[in-house]
Amino acid sequence: MTVTPRDPNYELRVRASFERQAVMATIGARLTHVVPGEVTLELPFRSDLTQQHGFLHAGIVTSVMDSACGYAALSLMEPGTGVLSVEFKVNLLAPARGNLFRAVGRVVRAGRNVTVVSGELRVVDPDAEASRALVAIMTGTMMTVRDRPGLSD
Amino acid sequence: MTVTPRDPNYELRVRASFERQAVMATIGARLTHVVPGEVTLELPFRSDLTQQHGFLHAGIVTSVMDSACGYAALSLMEPGTGVLSVEFKVNLLAPARGNLFRAVGRVVRAGRNVTVVSGELRVVDPDAEASRALVAIMTGTMMTVRDRPGLSD
Amino acid sequence: MTVTPRDPNYELRVRASFERQAVMATIGARLTHVVPGEVTLELPFRSDLTQQHGFLHAGIVTSVMDSACGYAALSLMEPGTGVLSVEFKVNLLAPARGNLFRAVGRVVRAGRNVTVVSGELRVVDPDAEASRALVAIMTGTMMTVRDRPGLSD
Amino acid sequence: MTVTPRDPNYELRVRASFERQAVMATIGARLTHVVPGEVTLELPFRSDLTQQHGFLHAGIVTSVMDSACGYAALSLMEPGTGVLSVEFKVNLLAPARGNLFRAVGRVVRAGRNVTVVSGELRVVDPDAEASRALVAIMTGTMMTVRDRPGLSD
Repeated sequence: MTVTPRDPNYELRVRASFERQAVMATIGARLTHVVPGEVTLELPFRSDLTQQHGFLHAGIVTSVMDSACGYAALSLMEPGTGVLSVEFKVNLLAPARGNLFRAVGRVVRAGRNVTVVSGELRVVDPDAEASRALVAIMTGTMMTVRDRPGLSD
Repeated sequence: MTVTPRDPNYELRVRASFERQAVMATIGARLTHVVPGEVTLELPFRSDLTQQHGFLHAGIVTSVMDSACGYAALSLMEPGTGVLSVEFKVNLLAPARGNLFRAVGRVVRAGRNVTVVSGELRVVDPDAEASRALVAIMTGTMMTVRDRPGLSD
Repeated sequence: MTVTPRDPNYELRVRASFERQAVMATIGARLTHVVPGEVTLELPFRSDLTQQHGFLHAGIVTSVMDSACGYAALSLMEPGTGVLSVEFKVNLLAPARGNLFRAVGRVVRAGRNVTVVSGELRVVDPDAEASRALVAIMTGTMMTVRDRPGLSD
Repeated sequence: MTVTPRDPNYELRVRASFERQAVMATIGARLTHVVPGEVTLELPFRSDLTQQHGFLHAGIVTSVMDSACGYAALSLMEPGTGVLSVEFKVNLLAPARGNLFRAVGRVVRAGRNVTVVSGELRVVDPDAEASRALVAIMTGTMMTVRDRPGLSD
């Protein structure tokens, strides 16, 4: 997608909002790339984020894909609006084992009120047996919030 | 659903597996009720689990619903098997604000290999403006894992 | 849910719109019950609606659940608006075999612009081996359309 | 994806199974391309397949995407097995108006028992205002069925 963002300060806006997502700091996620309609996050493995078999928990996998997708949507929204997740669906393709994970969120279609997004999470550590393995995919719907104090960005 | 669990020790098994989900301790979730085919978790609000507007992040909402649903599925599985999430879909109905949240996971249909589950998350604090408000719903698919060392329960 | 419909003529409105869904006549679906927030359809089995194993095709199963859910949503919308499906997810629990199927759609939460719905499809023929068997479940999002000529009801 | 199909007769097998999907003839869908892991269907518009506003009904949109995805999965399965849809999720991006629609189904990950697929439906008529417009996307899970008489292909 080649798109012109409606907010020229889209990157600062996304980065500032990400900084306010306290849970991202709690789990150790970093915002790496922001382009119009696409946002990338990285998450190092931590054993305190695992499920019973020692893999990253599906909810943590979802957390970083949801933030990547939500900020991909926000990067195309006009100034003064906010973004909320309406729904998402996640397919888990492989156990989330590895040292480093990368989540990419992309806008599939940006409407006035509703933005459809897709995301994925991959293992990216160079030594991993299944390097670049696809761990999970997401499709979701994000909503543009207007005129609700406290819900900007 | 009135069901006879295939593992008479289903409750101990679920509780022991939950204890090994390190992320549940990290976010402060508690396993409260376990009956065959239905599991309940509680999660107190914590500001370090929030998204940019101060609500519980959708990924955290998903984490507790996924664990509740996965353990509802495990409660009906025969001894020696394990449970993995295949996919889930979440609809977010209201912002997750409140002091205490309760997630319930239920088995809709338990097959030999595939179990379909549904879950919900509600605000339960007695003083909340919207007490018992439904925050999110989930439907998902859980898989019974057999003969894979390290993937029991 | 006990709800007061915003359109006192909700039943006529739903029934008239259903009559305009040409595909419902094509597949032989009937609108049976309409109450505020809940709509029921019936579909007799027909061999020209099947997939390769002789069961009702998943897309036909989806068609009647989507219409039931969409009209459940419409039954709560104010006059002059229209309904469109934004997204839905279907879990198929059992092969759709039998003589008669019943789809029920229900509103989970009705917002100003977005209505969350859930649906199910069951076999209902009295002689069926698995009478009342649950064939499929749906969760979805419906949108209230305003001010778009040609998109009423 | 570059993949070696486990059944050298994959194309004949897919085409023969498609011929047995009676509903595809009923709605007028054609199987156009079959390569390992990717299947394309075409569906001409017909006014008897529409919803109340005159667009193709979401269930019909789903039908062709589900068949495209299911046969993409089947194209990679070993001889003697069958395919069943476990679940799918559809996001509807634009009203399905136009003269001709093309559905493509692709395998995202093929496992022994579970295959994850993604699909899309586009308007393809050359004169359409929004030619090649993306109408809908699907992600789903297909199951490999073994040792169940009558459920081959």
